[in-house]
Amino acid sequence: MPSRYLSFRCSLPWLILLLQTLFLIRFFLRFPDVGNIYSPSDFYPEFQDVNHMVIFGFGFFLMVLRRYGFSSTGLNFLLIVLGVQCSVLVEDLFIFLRVQQHEGGMKSLAKAVVSMTAVAISTGAVLGKANPVQLIVMSLVELIIFYMSRCINRTFLQVPDSLTLMHVHLFGAYFGVAATSRFPEAPPGLDKNRSTPKSDLFSLLGTVFVWVFWPSFNSILADSKREAVLNTYFALAVSAVAAFMLSALTSKDGKFRMTHIHSAVLAGGVAISYTAHSIQHPWIAMILGLLGSVITILGSHCLQRCFNPAFKLQDTSGVHFTFGLPAVLGAVAAVVLCVVEKGISTQWNNLSSLGYLVFVDLGAFCQTISTALITGLITGLILNIKLLKTVHVSKYFDDQFYWEFPHLSVGF
Amino acid sequence: MPSRYLSFRCSLPWLILLLQTLFLIRFFLRFPDVGNIYSPSDFYPEFQDVNHMVIFGFGFFLMVLRRYGFSSTGLNFLLIVLGVQCSVLVEDLFIFLRVQQHEGGMKSLAKAVVSMTAVAISTGAVLGKANPVQLIVMSLVELIIFYMSRCINRTFLQVPDSLTLMHVHLFGAYFGVAATSRFPEAPPGLDKNRSTPKSDLFSLLGTVFVWVFWPSFNSILADSKREAVLNTYFALAVSAVAAFMLSALTSKDGKFRMTHIHSAVLAGGVAISYTAHSIQHPWIAMILGLLGSVITILGSHCLQRCFNPAFKLQDTSGVHFTFGLPAVLGAVAAVVLCVVEKGISTQWNNLSSLGYLVFVDLGAFCQTISTALITGLITGLILNIKLLKTVHVSKYFDDQFYWEFPHLSVGF
Amino acid sequence: MPSRYLSFRCSLPWLILLLQTLFLIRFFLRFPDVGNIYSPSDFYPEFQDVNHMVIFGFGFFLMVLRRYGFSSTGLNFLLIVLGVQCSVLVEDLFIFLRVQQHEGGMKSLAKAVVSMTAVAISTGAVLGKANPVQLIVMSLVELIIFYMSRCINRTFLQVPDSLTLMHVHLFGAYFGVAATSRFPEAPPGLDKNRSTPKSDLFSLLGTVFVWVFWPSFNSILADSKREAVLNTYFALAVSAVAAFMLSALTSKDGKFRMTHIHSAVLAGGVAISYTAHSIQHPWIAMILGLLGSVITILGSHCLQRCFNPAFKLQDTSGVHFTFGLPAVLGAVAAVVLCVVEKGISTQWNNLSSLGYLVFVDLGAFCQTISTALITGLITGLILNIKLLKTVHVSKYFDDQFYWEFPHLSVGF
Repeated sequence: MPSRYLSFRCSLPWLILLLQTLFLIRFFLRFPDVGNIYSPSDFYPEFQDVNHMVIFGFGFFLMVLRRYGFSSTGLNFLLIVLGVQCSVLVEDLFIFLRVQQHEGGMKSLAKAVVSMTAVAISTGAVLGKANPVQLIVMSLVELIIFYMSRCINRTFLQVPDSLTLMHVHLFGAYFGVAATSRFPEAPPGLDKNRSTPKSDLFSLLGTVFVWVFWPSFNSILADSKREAVLNTYFALAVSAVAAFMLSALTSKDGKFRMTHIHSAVLAGGVAISYTAHSIQHPWIAMILGLLGSVITILGSHCLQRCFNPAFKLQDTSGVHFTFGLPAVLGAVAAVVLCVVEKGISTQWNNLSSLGYLVFVDLGAFCQTISTALITGLITGLILNIKLLKTVHVSKYFDDQFYWEFPHLSVGF
Repeated sequence: MPSRYLSFRCSLPWLILLLQTLFLIRFFLRFPDVGNIYSPSDFYPEFQDVNHMVIFGFGFFLMVLRRYGFSSTGLNFLLIVLGVQCSVLVEDLFIFLRVQQHEGGMKSLAKAVVSMTAVAISTGAVLGKANPVQLIVMSLVELIIFYMSRCINRTFLQVPDSLTLMHVHLFGAYFGVAATSRFPEAPPGLDKNRSTPKSDLFSLLGTVFVWVFWPSFNSILADSKREAVLNTYFALAVSAVAAFMLSALTSKDGKFRMTHIHSAVLAGGVAISYTAHSIQHPWIAMILGLLGSVITILGSHCLQRCFNPAFKLQDTSGVHFTFGLPAVLGAVAAVVLCVVEKGISTQWNNLSSLGYLVFVDLGAFCQTISTALITGLITGLILNIKLLKTVHVSKYFDDQFYWEFPHLSVGF
Repeated sequence: MPSRYLSFRCSLPWLILLLQTLFLIRFFLRFPDVGNIYSPSDFYPEFQDVNHMVIFGFGFFLMVLRRYGFSSTGLNFLLIVLGVQCSVLVEDLFIFLRVQQHEGGMKSLAKAVVSMTAVAISTGAVLGKANPVQLIVMSLVELIIFYMSRCINRTFLQVPDSLTLMHVHLFGAYFGVAATSRFPEAPPGLDKNRSTPKSDLFSLLGTVFVWVFWPSFNSILADSKREAVLNTYFALAVSAVAAFMLSALTSKDGKFRMTHIHSAVLAGGVAISYTAHSIQHPWIAMILGLLGSVITILGSHCLQRCFNPAFKLQDTSGVHFTFGLPAVLGAVAAVVLCVVEKGISTQWNNLSSLGYLVFVDLGAFCQTISTALITGLITGLILNIKLLKTVHVSKYFDDQFYWEFPHLSVGF
């Protein structure tokens, strides 16, 4: 059926070439006032961990579909390397506009890689439904809007820079969910959006990788690295335990379900991302990890049965409950913990300053989530115009649409 | 045959919940005199290496059975994250009882992860035969007894703390072997305890990962890190070379056998674990690596043909020869090297102090191995009471017993 | 057909034993004047990265053939661990001969592992065609000649030591290409030199691993680590983007081809290896990465259609265009950049010193590539004498020739 296969030859390479040329020109004609990219900053090991986690870990983490392994890993790789360059460009633009300060090259690169997590998460929501052209457009739009949203939080709500970056899960998940709602739904008979034991194994490999590097991710920009690492580790450990527990509890015969493990072991890391550096007692981190896991697994049942069918929404790798719900929990917990801590230290006397704190934190949260939802919806609409060669639903979730398969006759 | 599938729904989740609640309460109600868990200790990179090795490396290292991939990796993950929390609790109890000193949070966590290697090794011995409930009980019992055994070595035999931790392979292997001897044997016709090329490939992936991180493992608590890393690397290199050599020598047609490579490349790292920090000449490390490999491959032939059938013992992933025998070799070598070194430096004049040294080292070794064997046997007996829902032998080595397989109709 | 399977039992293990004994004796009888191997050098994290990349990354990177997975990873592992020991021996010999200075143990080991990359690359050229005996002989010969070539560059052409090591890709690729040209060609009907989606997935896993660790590789010996890391990262990012772009542009229907991705994403890292530490503007690094990718993908088309058939050359995993061509580009770029920089700083007044610079750099390049080609050819001839039990062409690319397959009846 070659006629039903769209050719990306006239669009995809030229789009990439255009972007790459743009990035090159930008590095050639640097903005004035932007400092030296090689300025000292001893950041390599942390950067390496996060880079490894985002490129390798998320690449294999997304390999949940049985015929979409090449695309999951390969396109995630392409989006990250494009996005990191775009990120550096956007940051330079912001420094030029005086809304951000210059930082060392390695630190700026590390922040770019952390920001790309939002794109990796959103990709999970439209996994197998968006073609490479749509994915590239989506990731660039998302990246720019995420930078703007962070800038608003930093400038108007005075949220510290490292915390604005931790909205990355919240933003990525809800942007992705909103965008995916504009894609036509796959027909129910299509069995390509299922996993095989082999794809589950690769996905487990990626999950464990992401899990192991998560403390590096949460501590990369934190002031008190030690606390951030330890709290994240405890939260992750408890959420992994709770994932197995709840999976056995909610499934038939008390068996484990791989999709539960896949999504819930990371919930603790997401839930604690806002507060990892400030929590002073490990048990709070552990409770957060537990709640993160609970909300993920209950959420996966509720969303898949009620919410998604009602909104005709198909969230392929479940980023809504894997990253979205725990991030909401984390944001709420951050407000509560901050209020309780300040309240105790001031003996609940200074209620107006407490109220201001709550207002600022909730403001940043609401701003981020509503920006993500609205711009995600708009992006989803833009992505589905004819120009971008939308994929027919019968061709969803299929590597053969984007990759040459010289080995077809050999068998999988 | 749903009737033959036991449901773990009424036991497994509640057991995990109980444990997790206990750990949470312990972190909430900290013992008095136990220091701050966030006390400074700059230990993150080493901790990260060991954590990665134990969770990712051992998880895939154990993936040797053809239908047990999910459980090998998944349950190893569950046991580690449960065990690390339990470990911290036990350590606090020991600090409270004044038999141990407080150390920084990250160091304490690193030691907990190192201790979990014993559990990962024992799991290998009962791989596919024990259900999750049995595994959890086994790992907690083993962990507590290992801490006690270390405490005896430290208190009564004055073995340095970092060395007591290196008994982890010895303890894990013999505890596992003793425990597995109490499990009913799988029928000889069962072919599920074989490997496929795919499972061998994943297992090789895990083995290489463990191999690469082994120098970090051996040097994590050593005083002279540089020596520990270099000696371990040389021992590992020679044992890898010897593994290939002996595999070609002992097999038909001079071919390599994957199980040999799988077990013998690590033998050098195990054999040198006691002496890595103190050896002053690389050739001694290399000889130890060579002997470790020899003993592993010869042991694998002898044990599988004579010892295991005689004792009706089924050591699924061969931990006895992979970790047990090289650890015995390492312990003996440690005594010999220590005696020779002291003997030369005192010109063999002070024989009584030499005798005392030998007594102490052999005492620690005998104490560890006999504790492991006896408590392993008892644990094996306890694990096979009806309450813990022992698995029928026909259901051994099968993921489908513990995991939901929504993809069965799709094919493996 | 057991009669057609050659037995390596009488040759392979004894060869390995001989070598290992030699290495052991060398470590026992150290050369006089060679410093202490445990001398201080705080090099562990960098060493660990490179070790991980060479053993794990390249092992899985080479897994491109559908029935050669065990051998790709396993034999790469064997060659590295043998070669590292041989490397340390050769280096000691050179120190003894006063043509090299002693360095700390860890640094010397790190350089040994970096040198082994040449062997891993050459192995890729003869992948599936050389038996283990041939591979071991080849790797030792190559290693010794590479050390000599480096020594010539260092002594007669005054190239800094860290730069001579960066000729490793150039040397490895052309040595491998020359050696593989002396092996009989596989018959065209043989379909075992194809990949399956499974092997491609493992190979992608290895590629991503190598990609992530490449900045560590390029910066390990550099004086200005920060520049080396950042430039390498930018070059790698651009070459990954360009790989996707060119793959879509040159293939039918604008689809991606996995072999393109596999080879071209690394081209940037190879191309920049000579200049990563000295480039002062990221856009130069990016242009180099782009050109590296272009030359790799165009080269893969030209070489496979014109060059290889003409010379009856079969380069199994395409090391000529993956590593050879980008390394040539990198060497030429290094000369150009050096001349331009010096020329600008001296305002093009001191042309004779510029000429000398060009002469030295081109001299080192020509010496390396011609040594690689000539000795590679001779080694290829030696490898194909009857004594080394050359493999019959019908048995090429097959694990079953070197590994026991107890699981044959189970199915792949």
